[in-house]
Amino acid sequence: MSLAEEVQLLRKIPLFAKLDPAKLKLLAFTSERLTFPAGQGLFSQGDPGDAAYIIIDGEADVKVNSSKGGPPVTVAHLGRNSFIGEIAILCDVPRTASVVATSDLVTLRIAKDTFLRMVNEFPEMAIEIMRELARRLDKTNEQLSLARQSMN
Amino acid sequence: MSLAEEVQLLRKIPLFAKLDPAKLKLLAFTSERLTFPAGQGLFSQGDPGDAAYIIIDGEADVKVNSSKGGPPVTVAHLGRNSFIGEIAILCDVPRTASVVATSDLVTLRIAKDTFLRMVNEFPEMAIEIMRELARRLDKTNEQLSLARQSMN
Repeated sequence: MSLAEEVQLLRKIPLFAKLDPAKLKLLAFTSERLTFPAGQGLFSQGDPGDAAYIIIDGEADVKVNSSKGGPPVTVAHLGRNSFIGEIAILCDVPRTASVVATSDLVTLRIAKDTFLRMVNEFPEMAIEIMRELARRLDKTNEQLSLARQSMN
Repeated sequence: MSLAEEVQLLRKIPLFAKLDPAKLKLLAFTSERLTFPAGQGLFSQGDPGDAAYIIIDGEADVKVNSSKGGPPVTVAHLGRNSFIGEIAILCDVPRTASVVATSDLVTLRIAKDTFLRMVNEFPEMAIEIMRELARRLDKTNEQLSLARQSMN
């Protein structure tokens, strides 16, 4: 894919829609396209957090290990344009969950250093990530409320 | 309280620790100190989201209405330096939860416009808010995982 085509593709991702062409070119140079077949893991809970991913196409499940020794519990389902793996990078901790492709998955992998530099330099990107985190927190609060209601 | 004292106090809040003195002065001018006795609500689910709050002292519960008509379900407990009410502002939706003081509570109220201007202009603040949201999402995922395990 040519650089111009790659930049066109990045511009369609809402997180990057407002970045100017020079920044999109930089991102195209410093990020990596990675694909995963359905069933394959992107990373596992406890791994070092070395990169963030954006889903370009496909879907993935977020799973947290069960403290009772049972199978991992699915806590979120992510689709196109979702951000993955940013918690470990932002909080500087190991992966707090495992992520597994539930369909053939195309992702953009952004290394930790590049990611941190970008959110520092491009406030518009930081704000979009904040929005995405707020949306997911809202959704997870709702799920938690439903789970706790059915326990009563 | 004098402006210098107010700036000193703001500087002790981790979210603002890295802001330079001019920005802290602007924040001191544009924010408002609000106190709530234990048991009083800051806002209710469904209210328009007109401001964000930072807890200066005390504690508060985040509650989501029950879909079964029972009492609201507590989904988080927040203490000093926590951010409150940023989801509705960032996502431009009504309040997604109710927040109630569980002790005498001192907060800093930042109006929606001021908040959005600050995160746009001060990337260091946007990054701190991202970190806080990521931490809360991690914590909520853990709670959700525990709640779902006990349902099995």
